[in-house]
Amino acid sequence: MLSELFWIIPLCSIIALGFAWFFFKQVMKESEGTDQMKKIAVYVRNGAMAYLKQQYKVVGVFFLIMTVIFSFMAYYLEVQNPWVPFAFITGGFFSGLAGFFGMKTATYASARTANAAKKSLNAGLKIAFRSGAVMGLVVVGLGLFDISVWFYVLNIFYPVSQTDGHNLVIITTTMLTFGMGASAQALFARVGGGIFTKAADVGGDLVGKIEAGIPEDDPRNPATIADNVGDNVGDVAGMGADLYESYCGSILATAALGASAFYSAPSMQFRAVIAPMLIAAVGIILSIIGIFLVRTKENATQKDLLNSLARGINISSFLIVIFSLAIVYLLELENALGVWGAIVTGLVTGIIIGKATEYYTSHSYSPTQHIAKSSKTGAATVIISGLGIGMISTAIPVLAVVFGIVLSFLFASGFDFANVGMGLYGIGIAAVGMLSTLGITLATDAYGPIADNAGGNAEMSGLGDYVRKRTDALDALGNTTAATGKGFAIGSAALTALALLASYIEELKIGLLRIGQDIITLGNGVEIETAKATLTDFMNYYEVHLMNPIVLIGIFIGSMMAFLFCGLTMQAVGRAAQKMVDEVRRQFREIKGILEGTSEPDYARCVEISTKGAQIEMILPSILAILVPVLIGIILGVAGVMGLLVGALGTGFVLAVFMANSGGAWDNAKKYVEEGHLGGKGSSCHKATVIGDTVGDPFKDTSGPSLNILIKLMSMVAIVMSGLTVAFSLM
Amino acid sequence: MLSELFWIIPLCSIIALGFAWFFFKQVMKESEGTDQMKKIAVYVRNGAMAYLKQQYKVVGVFFLIMTVIFSFMAYYLEVQNPWVPFAFITGGFFSGLAGFFGMKTATYASARTANAAKKSLNAGLKIAFRSGAVMGLVVVGLGLFDISVWFYVLNIFYPVSQTDGHNLVIITTTMLTFGMGASAQALFARVGGGIFTKAADVGGDLVGKIEAGIPEDDPRNPATIADNVGDNVGDVAGMGADLYESYCGSILATAALGASAFYSAPSMQFRAVIAPMLIAAVGIILSIIGIFLVRTKENATQKDLLNSLARGINISSFLIVIFSLAIVYLLELENALGVWGAIVTGLVTGIIIGKATEYYTSHSYSPTQHIAKSSKTGAATVIISGLGIGMISTAIPVLAVVFGIVLSFLFASGFDFANVGMGLYGIGIAAVGMLSTLGITLATDAYGPIADNAGGNAEMSGLGDYVRKRTDALDALGNTTAATGKGFAIGSAALTALALLASYIEELKIGLLRIGQDIITLGNGVEIETAKATLTDFMNYYEVHLMNPIVLIGIFIGSMMAFLFCGLTMQAVGRAAQKMVDEVRRQFREIKGILEGTSEPDYARCVEISTKGAQIEMILPSILAILVPVLIGIILGVAGVMGLLVGALGTGFVLAVFMANSGGAWDNAKKYVEEGHLGGKGSSCHKATVIGDTVGDPFKDTSGPSLNILIKLMSMVAIVMSGLTVAFSLM
Repeated sequence: MLSELFWIIPLCSIIALGFAWFFFKQVMKESEGTDQMKKIAVYVRNGAMAYLKQQYKVVGVFFLIMTVIFSFMAYYLEVQNPWVPFAFITGGFFSGLAGFFGMKTATYASARTANAAKKSLNAGLKIAFRSGAVMGLVVVGLGLFDISVWFYVLNIFYPVSQTDGHNLVIITTTMLTFGMGASAQALFARVGGGIFTKAADVGGDLVGKIEAGIPEDDPRNPATIADNVGDNVGDVAGMGADLYESYCGSILATAALGASAFYSAPSMQFRAVIAPMLIAAVGIILSIIGIFLVRTKENATQKDLLNSLARGINISSFLIVIFSLAIVYLLELENALGVWGAIVTGLVTGIIIGKATEYYTSHSYSPTQHIAKSSKTGAATVIISGLGIGMISTAIPVLAVVFGIVLSFLFASGFDFANVGMGLYGIGIAAVGMLSTLGITLATDAYGPIADNAGGNAEMSGLGDYVRKRTDALDALGNTTAATGKGFAIGSAALTALALLASYIEELKIGLLRIGQDIITLGNGVEIETAKATLTDFMNYYEVHLMNPIVLIGIFIGSMMAFLFCGLTMQAVGRAAQKMVDEVRRQFREIKGILEGTSEPDYARCVEISTKGAQIEMILPSILAILVPVLIGIILGVAGVMGLLVGALGTGFVLAVFMANSGGAWDNAKKYVEEGHLGGKGSSCHKATVIGDTVGDPFKDTSGPSLNILIKLMSMVAIVMSGLTVAFSLM
Repeated sequence: MLSELFWIIPLCSIIALGFAWFFFKQVMKESEGTDQMKKIAVYVRNGAMAYLKQQYKVVGVFFLIMTVIFSFMAYYLEVQNPWVPFAFITGGFFSGLAGFFGMKTATYASARTANAAKKSLNAGLKIAFRSGAVMGLVVVGLGLFDISVWFYVLNIFYPVSQTDGHNLVIITTTMLTFGMGASAQALFARVGGGIFTKAADVGGDLVGKIEAGIPEDDPRNPATIADNVGDNVGDVAGMGADLYESYCGSILATAALGASAFYSAPSMQFRAVIAPMLIAAVGIILSIIGIFLVRTKENATQKDLLNSLARGINISSFLIVIFSLAIVYLLELENALGVWGAIVTGLVTGIIIGKATEYYTSHSYSPTQHIAKSSKTGAATVIISGLGIGMISTAIPVLAVVFGIVLSFLFASGFDFANVGMGLYGIGIAAVGMLSTLGITLATDAYGPIADNAGGNAEMSGLGDYVRKRTDALDALGNTTAATGKGFAIGSAALTALALLASYIEELKIGLLRIGQDIITLGNGVEIETAKATLTDFMNYYEVHLMNPIVLIGIFIGSMMAFLFCGLTMQAVGRAAQKMVDEVRRQFREIKGILEGTSEPDYARCVEISTKGAQIEMILPSILAILVPVLIGIILGVAGVMGLLVGALGTGFVLAVFMANSGGAWDNAKKYVEEGHLGGKGSSCHKATVIGDTVGDPFKDTSGPSLNILIKLMSMVAIVMSGLTVAFSLM
C-alpha cells in the first residue's frame, strides 16, 4: 500500500500544470501588437514548429528502433526488465512535450512582450517572466507527474511491502530507465537545437553584419527569422528537455539509492524513496509562491527588477530549506538531520557555482573586463584571454562540487565513510535539493530568450529605439539570473552522474540475479550472496580499481569522448553555418531589392536549411554517445564501463564549465564594449570582441550544455544495458 | 655483484657524450659568416645565456628549499629514503645541463647554418641536423650516465643479491626520486621557456607586424632578438629538459616495476631491471648510426632531404626492433618474446600517434586545409574549426595509447590479466621502446628551431632571399619530422605516467614497512603481510575503487588541475606579451630613427622583460603542480592521490593532444595561405589565419607541452612524498 503521503506528489504535479495553464492564459490575453509584429511572430512560430516537427520525426525513428531493440532484449534475450521499452518511450515523450509546450508559449510571448515593453519595463518583464514560468512549471509538473504515474502502476505489479525491500528496488531501478528516454530526447534537443541556433546566428551574422553591413535582427537579412527561431528551438525547447532530464534523473537516481540503502529495512525504505519526490513536490509550491512574488512597481528601474527576480528565487530557496527539514522529520527518516544537511549542502553548492559563474562571465567583474581590454591588441588576445580565463574559472565550480560531494556524503552517512549506501543517498538528495526550486529558476532562465526574441520582433517591426532598449535590459537581466540557473544545472549534473554510477551497480546486481548468479566470488576467494553484496564488494568482484588497466583504458576513452563530442558539435555548427552563409549570399544575389528593402527575403528557406543541417549533424554525436557505452560494456565489461563513465564525468564536467564560462564571458565582453567602453560600437575593439563572441556561440550554446547531457546519457545507457553487459561481456 | 652486462650501459652513455662532443666540434669548425651575422648571433647567444642564468637562479632557490624539506623528512621525520635529497638534486642538475648544452650548441649553430645555406640546402641541413644531434645525444648520454652512476653507487650500499629481491627494490625506487628532480627542472624549463618565447613572439608580432607593418624578423623590431632567444630557451632548452625527464622517467619506472614484478625471483629480477637500460644503451648506438645515415647529394631537393631524414629514423627504429629481440633473449628474460612484443607495441604506438599528428597538423592533408579555407568567413571560423578539429584529433592518439596499453600488458603478462606485475612491466617497457631511439628523433626535433633561428639571422643580416627560402625549407622539413617526435613524447608520457602509478604503490609499500606496519588488513578482514601484498591487495586496502567518493573527488580535482594549469600558463603568456607590447611601443616612441633603420633598438631590454615576465609567471603554476599532490596526500590519503593522478592523466593527456594539434594546425593553415593559396600573404584570409596562429602559439608551445610534464611531475611528487602520506595522512 502506498502511504497517503505519496498522493502529495501527483497532486503538486497537477497544481504545477494548472498554474502553467493559468499563466499561459494570462499571457495569451495580451495583445500581439501591430500587424507587422504579428506577421513576424507568425513567421517565427511557424519556423519553430516546422523545426520541431522535423526533429520529432527523426527522434521518433530513433525511439522506434531503440524500443524494438529493448523489446528484443527484454522478451527474447530476457536480459532486460520487461517494463523498459515502455518506460523508455514515456521518458522521451514527456521530455519532448515539456520542450514543446515551453516553446509554444515562448513563440506566443515574444511579440506580446515587445508590445508590453512599449508601455513599461515592468509590463514587459511580467509577460516575459510569466511565459518563462509556464516553461518552468510544465517541466517540473510533467516530470513529477510521469514519476508518480509510473510509481503507481509499478506498485500494482510489484507491491511495496513493509517486510521485504525487493519490490521497491525493482520499482525504482525500472523507473530509472525512463530517465534514459528523457536523456536521449534531451541530447537530440540540445545538440540539434544548439546546432540550429548557432548555424543561423553565426551564418546570419557573417554575411549580414560583416559582409552586407546591416545591423543585427534587420528584416533585410534572410537569416533573421531563422536566428529568432533558433533562440526558441535551442534556448527554450532544448533547455526544457535538458532540465526535464536533470530534474527527473536526480529524483529517480536518489529514489533508487534510497531503495538500495534501506534494502534490509523495508519500513524505512519507502520513506527514503519518496523523500526526494516529496521535496520536489513541495519545491513546486514554493516555486509558484516565488513566481507570484516577482512583481514590482510601474516605471521600476533595472535594479528594482533585478531585486524583484532575486527576491522570488531567494524566498523560494529559503523556504525549501525550512520545508525540507519538516519533510525529513515528518517522514521520520533515519538520520533526518543529516539528510537535511545534505539537501542544504546541495543548495549551497548550486549557489556557489552560480555566483562563480556570474563572477567569471558578467562584465561587472574584472575577468570579463580583462577580456574586453585585451581587445586593444586584437582578436587573438581576446581569444587567448577568453580561453585562459575560462580554464581558470573551472577551479571554483569543481571545488564547490568536491565539497558538496564530501559534505553531503558525510552528513547523510553520519560522518561514517564506511556507510557508503547512506552517503551516496546524501549525494543524490543534494542534487534534488539543488533542483527542487527548478520551477522558478527555470522561469528566470527561459525568460531570457523570450526577451531576446521580443527585441528581435521590436527591431524588425520598426518599433522605437526605447522599446529595443527595454527588451535589451530585460535580456541583460535574464543573463545575470540565468547564471544561477546554470550553476544549478551544472552542479546537479555532476552529483546526479555520481548517483547514477551507484545505480549502475544496483542494476548489475539485479542483472546477475536475473541470469541466476546468486553467489559472487571476491578476489581473495571470499564468497558472498549476490543479493547481499555491498557496493564495495562489487568493486572488488569486478576489479574496478585504479590499477586495473581496463579501468584506466575506460577513463582514457571517457576523457576522449568528452573532447570528441565537443569537436564534432563544433564542426557541425561550422558546417551548418557555412550552408547558411551560402544561402544568404545566394538570396542577396538572386532576389533583387532585398538590401534596399523593396522585396522580402525568403525567410522560410533559411529556416529549412538550418533545420536540415541540424538534423543531419546531430545524428553522429548522439549515436556515438549511445553506442560507445554499449560497445565498451560488451568488450571491456563492467570495469571498462565504470572507467568510461568516470573519465567522461571528470573531463566532461570541467570541459563543460570551461566552455560555458568562456562563451559567456566573450558574449559579455562584447556587450561591455557595446555599452561604450574602449571605443564602443564599430571600434576596432568592438570588432575584436565580436570575433570572440562568435567563437563563444557554439561554446556556450551547443557544445558546452550538451556535455552535461552526454555525461548522464552515457550513464543511463550503461544502466539500461547492464543486463546485456552482465550476460554477454567478453571480460 | 653487478653483471658484466651492466657495464654496457655507462659505456654507451659515454659514447653518446663523445659523439656529441665530436659533432659539436664539427659544427664549430664552420664559419659564422659576415660580421653582421656574427653580431646577431652574439646578441641571441648573450640573451639566451642571460635568460638561462636567471632561470637557474630561480630554480636553484627552489631546489635548495626542496632539498632542505627532503632532508628534514629523511633525517628528522624519518619518513623518507635518506638518498632522496641527493638523488633529487642530481636529477635536476643533469636535466638542466642537458638543456644548457643543447642550447649552447643551438646558439652557436644558427649563424653557421645560415652561412652554410648560402652554399646549398644540403650544407645547411648538415650543420643544423648535426647541432640537433648534439642535443639528442647529450640528453640520452647524460640521462643514461646519471642512471648508471646511481645504480653503481646504490649497489655499494644495498648490494644486489641473487637470493633476496629486497635491495634491488630499494635501489630502483630510490632512483625514481631523481626523476622528480628532472621533472621539476623540466617543468620550470618548459613553462618558463614557453612563456618567454610566446611573450616575445606574440608581443613582437602584435606591435611590429600589425601596428608598425614591418615584416617578421625585421632588425628594426626591438623584440626580434627576444623572439629568436625564445626559440632557443623554449624550443631547445625547454624541450631538452622535457625529454631528458621522459627518457629517464620511463627507464626508471620500468626498472622499478621489474624489481617489483620479480621480487620473489631474484635471479630474474636483476635482468628485468637492467633490460630497459640496455635497450636504451643499444638505442644510443643505433641512433648514432642513424645520424650518420642522414646525408644526401649536393643540390638535393626538399624531397630528397625528407627521405634522407626519414631513412635515418626508420633504420634506427627497425634496428632497435631486431636488437631488442636479441637483448631480451640474451638476458634470458621470463617470457622474452612477450616482453619484446611489448617493446614493439610501444614503437608502433608512437609511430601511429606521430602519423595522426602529421595528418591533423600538416597542410598536405584536408583538416588543416579545411581550417585555412574557413578563413574565407573570417577569423572566428578559423578559431572554431581549429578548436573543433583539434578536439576531434584526440581520438586516434587516445585509441593508439589504449591499444598500446592493452597489447603491451597482454604480451608481457602472457595474456593473463591476473599477472598484473608483468603486465605493468610491459607497459613501462613499451614506453622505453618508444623512446629508445630518442638520440635521433630528438635530433630531428631540435634542428627545427635551429633552422628557424638561422632564418632569423639571414633576415636580419640582409642575406639574399634564396637563403631565407632555404632555411624556411629546412624549418618546414623539421615540422614534418618533428610530428613523429611529438607522437613519441606524448605517447611515452601517457605510458610512463601509468607505470609511475604502479611505482607509487611500491613506494607506499616501502613507506609502510619503514613505519613498521608489517601487516595490512583488507576490506573483508583478510590479513596480509605488507611485504607480500600485491597491487590489487593495496587497491583493496586503500579502497582505491570507483565508488569511493574520495577517489572520485581526486579525479575531479585532477581533471580540474589540467585545465587550471593551462589557463594559468595561457594567461601568463598574455600578461608577459602585454609587457613586451608596452616596451616595443615605448622604444618606437622614445628612440628616434628605429623605424627608419638609422638607429638600433634596445634588444637587450626586450630580452630582459621577457625573462623577468617568464620567471615571475612560471612560479604559480609550478608550485601548484608540486603542492597539490602533497596536500591531497595529507588530506585525502592514498585514494585521493590515486584519483588525482588518474584524473590529471586522463584529462591532461587528451587536453595536451588537443592543444598541440590545434596549435600546429593553425600554424600550418597560415603557412598554407602564405604559400599562395586563398589569396596568399596580405589577403584577408591571411589575416584571419595569422590570428589563428597567434592563438595557437601558447597552445602548442607553452600550455600543451607543459601538460605532459605536469602529469608526470605530479606522479613523481606523489612517489617522493609517499612516506609523508603513509605517516601523516588524515584519512
